[in-house]
Amino acid sequence: MITIAVDAMGGDNGLTVTAPAAAQFLQRNADARLIMVGDETAVKNALVKTNAPLERIEIVHSTEVVAMDEPPQHALKNKKDSSMRVAINLVKDGKAAAAVSAGNTGALMATARFVLKTVSGIQHPAIAKFLPAKDDQLVCALDLGANVDCPSEQLLQFAIMGTQLVKAMQPEKNKPKVGLLNVGTEDIKGTDTVKAAYSLLKNSHLNFIGNVEGSDIFSGKVDVIVCDGFVGNIVLKTIEGTAGFIGGMVKDGFTQSLYAKWVAMWSLPILKKFKQKVDPRRFNGAIFLGLRGIVIKSHGGTDAVGFEYALLEAYKEIKADFIQSLEQAVEQDLSHLDV
Amino acid sequence: MITIAVDAMGGDNGLTVTAPAAAQFLQRNADARLIMVGDETAVKNALVKTNAPLERIEIVHSTEVVAMDEPPQHALKNKKDSSMRVAINLVKDGKAAAAVSAGNTGALMATARFVLKTVSGIQHPAIAKFLPAKDDQLVCALDLGANVDCPSEQLLQFAIMGTQLVKAMQPEKNKPKVGLLNVGTEDIKGTDTVKAAYSLLKNSHLNFIGNVEGSDIFSGKVDVIVCDGFVGNIVLKTIEGTAGFIGGMVKDGFTQSLYAKWVAMWSLPILKKFKQKVDPRRFNGAIFLGLRGIVIKSHGGTDAVGFEYALLEAYKEIKADFIQSLEQAVEQDLSHLDV
Repeated sequence: MITIAVDAMGGDNGLTVTAPAAAQFLQRNADARLIMVGDETAVKNALVKTNAPLERIEIVHSTEVVAMDEPPQHALKNKKDSSMRVAINLVKDGKAAAAVSAGNTGALMATARFVLKTVSGIQHPAIAKFLPAKDDQLVCALDLGANVDCPSEQLLQFAIMGTQLVKAMQPEKNKPKVGLLNVGTEDIKGTDTVKAAYSLLKNSHLNFIGNVEGSDIFSGKVDVIVCDGFVGNIVLKTIEGTAGFIGGMVKDGFTQSLYAKWVAMWSLPILKKFKQKVDPRRFNGAIFLGLRGIVIKSHGGTDAVGFEYALLEAYKEIKADFIQSLEQAVEQDLSHLDV
Repeated sequence: MITIAVDAMGGDNGLTVTAPAAAQFLQRNADARLIMVGDETAVKNALVKTNAPLERIEIVHSTEVVAMDEPPQHALKNKKDSSMRVAINLVKDGKAAAAVSAGNTGALMATARFVLKTVSGIQHPAIAKFLPAKDDQLVCALDLGANVDCPSEQLLQFAIMGTQLVKAMQPEKNKPKVGLLNVGTEDIKGTDTVKAAYSLLKNSHLNFIGNVEGSDIFSGKVDVIVCDGFVGNIVLKTIEGTAGFIGGMVKDGFTQSLYAKWVAMWSLPILKKFKQKVDPRRFNGAIFLGLRGIVIKSHGGTDAVGFEYALLEAYKEIKADFIQSLEQAVEQDLSHLDV
């Protein structure tokens, strides 16, 4: 059985999202069980409204909830019985193989780092995500916001972790192609830090293909894209903004006249498929990379469909035995380098 | 008459693009004339193939062309008779009110800066562009790649210049809203440089609305978005990549089956309108901001339609008497600040 701890109270919508997502997820994955952490009565009440297989759900009571705008250090110091903290404790204690939360990102990272610690050789965990690319490929992008300033050594660590994540999750890619996000493909491009990272990556054992540009994210020419968390977070949100803007234009186009609406009726199967392909919920579930345990962050405002994808991300990582392979890879890759 | 100098040989395609673009542009703008700089015979031969009103075209002969991959300093030192350099000289000498080139960006910036110099108070020119936003609004984004490292004072200068550009080009906006691109809206977010820029902007006379995120670019909630050139260039290319990726999916959707193709036939007017709205050629023409003269950079690989839009951008800036208003604004805005 695969066991995942769920911060049942986290996110903008708490149990109204996590309970139906848990039910749906368990219906679809017969070898999974969930530990729902939160107010016991509230969790029970929310679950009975769903078709959840209750025999595969354990409820662990907790009395506190981390607020979405709570400073991370405040949550870490004062909310020791929060649903978030208790869920992560379950991973540390070996009672769950992963924790999933839609709560406050900063608090989740601070708590996860404090409770689980980082893998040896990794100073700072990163936030990674698989983004869709050409020909139904996936590209692992990191860091997406955990570290605003990253020295070059840290960018190298991101590349090692991203490579390992791709290898674990997509075993058919045994030499994932790594690209360094930059303002041009030539090696003289970029800030001093990025130039130093270029040379570290070039001298590593990774399959480094060089600098890539923003337009290469979807090209399928790389499997891993590395950048600092400042750039990565802005890029991720720019992608979301662009997709929303264009999606809105498509929608407007098909609703702005009677004729357009008539055509839209016939286009429905095509438009539905398109909508599904760009549905951000399918790519929900950011991975906290570099911890001694699996922690998945769901978008705070997502719905049950989105939260189920976050649970699925955790499920797939557990199945891939990711943490153990990460620890080995980091040790191996860093031992080859004088950094 | 509005006179624009054109680097007729620049870009990936040179005269095959610049000549028909020039013809079309002059047909549409009766109060404009162009000085086409390049190999006289080649320019003449290219123009006779078009319906250009030759009485409004002057050809200035030049013997050299800056290569697309030529190091900027090499071009600056060794190509004094390049079509690019001569076009910029014409602006300096007051013979043209703007120069437009699809050539090597680095060489164009280095040459423009060397020949025209910067506006007093501005140390480094920026690259700005108007991007489409919600409800047919436009947002001025800068810097899009001229400066990879920007101290906070420079980000403030970008905000001043962007504000002035919006005021000149969209006079209905007399207090353009300025946003600082960041990883969150709270003032504690971002790198030290960005935090310092936040406080400079807050204490300025600009209409600073605070930090904005990548997803806000298209929201219409700001008129000017400020960031360093490293982030800006990656963001711009990410937008292009995302738009291309999604556009490709829409196209795939409407061609993948006989039924889809049949629906596409009926959807044609809608899809055409959509395609036109996201057509990157309509947003061609990046503005080199902070120089004592108007220089517009066209995308190197654009076609005649795209290059015509770059010419139009120059035309509009000249009409708005932008450079004079910029010099006044910079002086005024910086005099209020202790920077």
